[in-house]
Amino acid sequence: MYKIVLLRHGESTWNKDNRFTGWTDVDLTEKGVVEARQAGQLLKREGFAFDLAFTSVLKRANKTLNIVLEELDALWLPVEHSWRLNERHYGALQGLNKAETAAKFGDDQVLVWRRSYDTPPPPLEDGDERLATDDPRYASLPRGRFPRTECLKDTVARFVPYWETVIAPSVLEGKRILIAAHGNSLRALIKYLDGISDKDIVGLNIPTAQPLVYELDADLRPIRSYYLADEDTIRAAEAAVAGQGRAQP
Amino acid sequence: MYKIVLLRHGESTWNKDNRFTGWTDVDLTEKGVVEARQAGQLLKREGFAFDLAFTSVLKRANKTLNIVLEELDALWLPVEHSWRLNERHYGALQGLNKAETAAKFGDDQVLVWRRSYDTPPPPLEDGDERLATDDPRYASLPRGRFPRTECLKDTVARFVPYWETVIAPSVLEGKRILIAAHGNSLRALIKYLDGISDKDIVGLNIPTAQPLVYELDADLRPIRSYYLADEDTIRAAEAAVAGQGRAQP
Repeated sequence: MYKIVLLRHGESTWNKDNRFTGWTDVDLTEKGVVEARQAGQLLKREGFAFDLAFTSVLKRANKTLNIVLEELDALWLPVEHSWRLNERHYGALQGLNKAETAAKFGDDQVLVWRRSYDTPPPPLEDGDERLATDDPRYASLPRGRFPRTECLKDTVARFVPYWETVIAPSVLEGKRILIAAHGNSLRALIKYLDGISDKDIVGLNIPTAQPLVYELDADLRPIRSYYLADEDTIRAAEAAVAGQGRAQP
Repeated sequence: MYKIVLLRHGESTWNKDNRFTGWTDVDLTEKGVVEARQAGQLLKREGFAFDLAFTSVLKRANKTLNIVLEELDALWLPVEHSWRLNERHYGALQGLNKAETAAKFGDDQVLVWRRSYDTPPPPLEDGDERLATDDPRYASLPRGRFPRTECLKDTVARFVPYWETVIAPSVLEGKRILIAAHGNSLRALIKYLDGISDKDIVGLNIPTAQPLVYELDADLRPIRSYYLADEDTIRAAEAAVAGQGRAQP
């Protein structure tokens, strides 16, 4: 039996401001730092140790991982960064406040952009300063394939090949793996692992900085999955995430 | 022409306590964190950017590197960890206060242990709890070859092969490289790069968290090397390091 741990980053400044973030490289809030530290302490208390970690190229996930590794006394751990673990690209909505966007376009349209499996938000246009094609962290991503927007289906399509070709072989080698990523890239992985339908995956809410354990069989099919924290903590955290993106009263 | 940057970690708790540290995994002090942050800000101000970083498996170097990378907005950077970049192993002196050791054994003996090129301090004995052979960060190091003490010559002998087989090829590929390591592992590298004699290398003092730039020719021979900070800053920092290990008045 194999065991991996998934972790969404702690609260970011734009989670707090209720803005669409996507590939925008925002920092953790102080609360997010505390959440990350608590996640590390919880993993340590429960006796978890790792051989290898995977993360995105966005600082909110990278910092969350570093804080967790510090708590585990494992800053020496090998870490692989890939844009394929990035948050879903949110296109032209990146930077907009979720509640304002909902007030402007309607709750329904925003819910479609946030939670439809295959309808992407409007794309970034040529010349938009949010189109970070020159950022060296994306040097391995051909400019013509740089995303201008993504639906969750697109995120699945770029994360799953990385799981299959890079992460899964490491799991099969017996490496104990931690994946520090984002709400939608983790949703993409969970959809794939658990075989969740296009319709159901969009209703799955992943709380910030709550270690989620997957036990996998010899074929890397999930035997069971569970959050390390107690149920009340998780329910409250899921509800907080689900409540985002509504027009404020 | 190639350019690499060497960086000794910021002040550690045992630098501050004036203890022999070696492979003991002590943390940065608050001052050490500030030093690391200033090093990152200086590199940023001077326009430095990197493609790859190398560091030891000791947290004072790992944290220094992470803080610098955060200042450079490059937490996504690939980082290679190796015990071969660790500080010199200080054998049975690890944990002892330098001034107390000097008062007990005499300044001369301590100076020999600290600054002789080929005389190691007394080794750790079997069963000594400081012999961390079970630590997973040393899984790639055969137990029988786990150091029990080292002179600087030993540190050179285990760092230079890593330079030659791993770091130098990356430099030759054109990667801009940052090495975050320790006083003696950097001394080992500098001895090799600059062809410094066994006698002279022991007098070289490397200040904490001061970026040291090496410009290298096509054969990776140094053209010139310089600290980024101004001369007065460096002179004061070198003097502070040189003053350690004397019996306190």
